[in-house]
Amino acid sequence: VTLSELDTPALLIDLDIMERNLGRVADYARAHNLRLRPHTKTHKIPALARRQRSLGAAGITVAKVGEAEVMLAAEPDDLLVAYPVLGPRKLARLMAVAGRTQVTVALDSLIAAQQLSAAAHGAGLTIGVLVEFDAGLDRMGVRPGEELVALAREVAQLPGLTLAGLSFYPGHIKHLDEDGLRRLDALAALLAAVEADFARAGIPIRIVSGGSTPTLFQSHRLPLLNEIRPGTYIFNDRNTVAAGACTPADCAVSILVTVVSNARGASVMIDGGSKTFSSDRSAVAGDVTCGHIVEAPDARFVKMNEEHGFVDVRDSSRHFAVGDRVRVIPNHVCVAMNLHEQVYGMRGGEVEQVWRVEARGKLQ
Amino acid sequence: VTLSELDTPALLIDLDIMERNLGRVADYARAHNLRLRPHTKTHKIPALARRQRSLGAAGITVAKVGEAEVMLAAEPDDLLVAYPVLGPRKLARLMAVAGRTQVTVALDSLIAAQQLSAAAHGAGLTIGVLVEFDAGLDRMGVRPGEELVALAREVAQLPGLTLAGLSFYPGHIKHLDEDGLRRLDALAALLAAVEADFARAGIPIRIVSGGSTPTLFQSHRLPLLNEIRPGTYIFNDRNTVAAGACTPADCAVSILVTVVSNARGASVMIDGGSKTFSSDRSAVAGDVTCGHIVEAPDARFVKMNEEHGFVDVRDSSRHFAVGDRVRVIPNHVCVAMNLHEQVYGMRGGEVEQVWRVEARGKLQ
Repeated sequence: VTLSELDTPALLIDLDIMERNLGRVADYARAHNLRLRPHTKTHKIPALARRQRSLGAAGITVAKVGEAEVMLAAEPDDLLVAYPVLGPRKLARLMAVAGRTQVTVALDSLIAAQQLSAAAHGAGLTIGVLVEFDAGLDRMGVRPGEELVALAREVAQLPGLTLAGLSFYPGHIKHLDEDGLRRLDALAALLAAVEADFARAGIPIRIVSGGSTPTLFQSHRLPLLNEIRPGTYIFNDRNTVAAGACTPADCAVSILVTVVSNARGASVMIDGGSKTFSSDRSAVAGDVTCGHIVEAPDARFVKMNEEHGFVDVRDSSRHFAVGDRVRVIPNHVCVAMNLHEQVYGMRGGEVEQVWRVEARGKLQ
Repeated sequence: VTLSELDTPALLIDLDIMERNLGRVADYARAHNLRLRPHTKTHKIPALARRQRSLGAAGITVAKVGEAEVMLAAEPDDLLVAYPVLGPRKLARLMAVAGRTQVTVALDSLIAAQQLSAAAHGAGLTIGVLVEFDAGLDRMGVRPGEELVALAREVAQLPGLTLAGLSFYPGHIKHLDEDGLRRLDALAALLAAVEADFARAGIPIRIVSGGSTPTLFQSHRLPLLNEIRPGTYIFNDRNTVAAGACTPADCAVSILVTVVSNARGASVMIDGGSKTFSSDRSAVAGDVTCGHIVEAPDARFVKMNEEHGFVDVRDSSRHFAVGDRVRVIPNHVCVAMNLHEQVYGMRGGEVEQVWRVEARGKLQ
C-alpha cells in the first residue's frame, strides 16, 4: 500500500525519523547512565513499547491502569503508573496487572499509599512506590523537606509496599531560555537538598525519576536524578519544537488530509478537525494555529470544527483544489494519537506498518 | 448499579433532563412544521438516534461516512452527511450505506458533485444533494446568488444525483444579543433573496436545511428554512448555556471524577484531563475554565494535562479530600463523548442504561 492509496484523515509516522528519535534518547540515557522508562501515553502501541525495550529501556511508564492493562502485551520488566490510583475497582485491576509484572506507582498522599498498601497486602503482592514531590510547578507532589521525608518513611513502613524512590515533574520549565536555565539551576539545588535530607534521615533512595521534554537532554546536569521517562520524543510535534527539544526535521508524525471545499476565497476546508488533531493549542504564546502544513508553510490552519479544519490561504502561494491532499504536523501528538483507531508507519512512500492504537481511549 | 459503584472518570447522562430536552425540540419542530433531522455527532449512539426518530425526527444527520455506517443501526429513513465526501474509498463506503437507506450529501463544489454522481451512477443509486451556501460565516458554501443557482442547476443535471435542496450554517451568529439579532435579521433577508433567486430560475427547492444552536428556537422566524438539524440539544453543555440556548438546569451531562491529590494547597488534582473532557475552550470570551464543578461552583477547573485536571480551590468553601468524587459539566459535550468507550444513563442515582459510544473515533 502506498501513500496515495490511504484514505484521509490518516496519521502517518515516518519510520526513519522515529527510529532516529528512539536511538538518540536511548544513546543519551546510556551515555549518562540514566535509566530510561519511556512514557507510552504518547504512542499507546505495545509494539512500540517493545521497540523501546529492545533499545535498552529499563521499564515503561503509563498514565493510568487502562494503559497498564494494554501495555502488558509489551512484557515490560517494570511498569510505572505515574499517578495515584484510588478506589477498590481500579486497585483490583492494578493488582491483576501486578500479578504479571513489577508495578510501581507514583503518589503524594498517605491516603493513596494506604489504599494501595491494603490492596497489595490483600493480594499478597509488593508494589513499588515513588513519592512525588513538587519541583516548582505547584500542581502536584508534597513539599520537599520534612513533609517529603515523612511521607517516604510512612510508605516504607506500610505492608505490601516498597519505597522505590522519588519522582518529580518540572513542568514549570517550559523552554531553556534564560529564565528556563535559571529554573534548571534552582531545580539542581533543590535536588541536592532533597539528597541531603534523605541522607540525614538514613532513608535509602534507589530511583529518582523525573524530567520533562524541555529538560530531557539536560538530565545529566541534575543531581540525584537517575531515571528519565520521556514520551513525546518518539514522534515529536510542534510543541516539542517550541520547547527547543528537537528541530522540525525531527517530527516523525503528520496527518494526511484532503481539501473538501475551496468555495470561499480566503480559506479552504480540510477533512480533519478537533476529533482528528484534538483542540490542544500551540505552546507558543500568541500562536493560534492548529498545525503546520508541510506542503504550504505559508497557509495558516486557523480554526477547527469537530471533523473539519479551516486553512487561511490568503498568504499561501500554493493553490488548494478540492481533492488535494496535504500533510499537517499536529501541535500535540499524544492527544492526536488517542483519536485514531489505527496509524500508518511509512518508509519511502510505502506503508510498512499498520498499528492499531491499542490503548487509546481506555478507562482510567 | 448505583452512582457510588461507578469508577471514575465516568460520563453520566441524566435521563430525565435528556428526555425533557428531546421533547422540547421535538415539540418546537412539530409546532412550526419544521422537519427535524438531529445531528448524531453529539451522542454517537444508535439507540439515541432511534429515540429521536420515535419522537418524530424525519431523518438523522452525520458528519462523516464512518458515523453513517454506525448509524444504519438506527434504521433512519434518510441520512444526511453534512459535508462533501471525496475520493473513491469513502465514496464506495457511502454507496454501501446508500444501498440500505436514502442518503443525502451537503456539498459546495462541482468537483464533489461530479465525484458523487459518478459513484452513485456506477452503483445504480440516487443520492440526494443539498447545495451548501455561505450564510455569513465565510467558511464554507458558495456565494448566494448566481453562483448558488448555477451549482444547483448543474447538480440537478448530473446522473445519479437528485437536487434535494439547500443547506447553510449560520455560525457567525454566536448569541442572540443585539448584534446577534441584527445578524438574524440579515440572514432572514438573505434567505428571502435566495428564495426569489430560485423562483426566478424555476428550480424547485424541496428542503432548506440549516440553523445552529444559538438560532435553534428562532428557526420559525427564518423564511425558506424548513429543516433543522440540531445536535447538542439532547445533552447541552456549558457552551450551549453560553449561547443562550438553554439554562444550566438543562445540562444532562456531567463527568464524575475523583480527587487524586490535594498535596498542593492552592489546587487539587482530579482524574480527568484533555483525554476525558477534550481541550475545547469555553465559548465565553476570557473564560479559561475547563468545566463547571457541580458540587463546588466556586472552585475553578483551570488546567488539564492528558489524564488529570487541576482545580483551583482557593475561593472554594468546599474541602477537597483525596478520594472525594465530584461531577463536572464539560465545555463541549460532543468532543467529550468521542473520548469515552461507554457512558451511563442515570435516573434517581441509579444506572438505568449503559451505552457504548458506538460511533466514536471512527474513520471519516
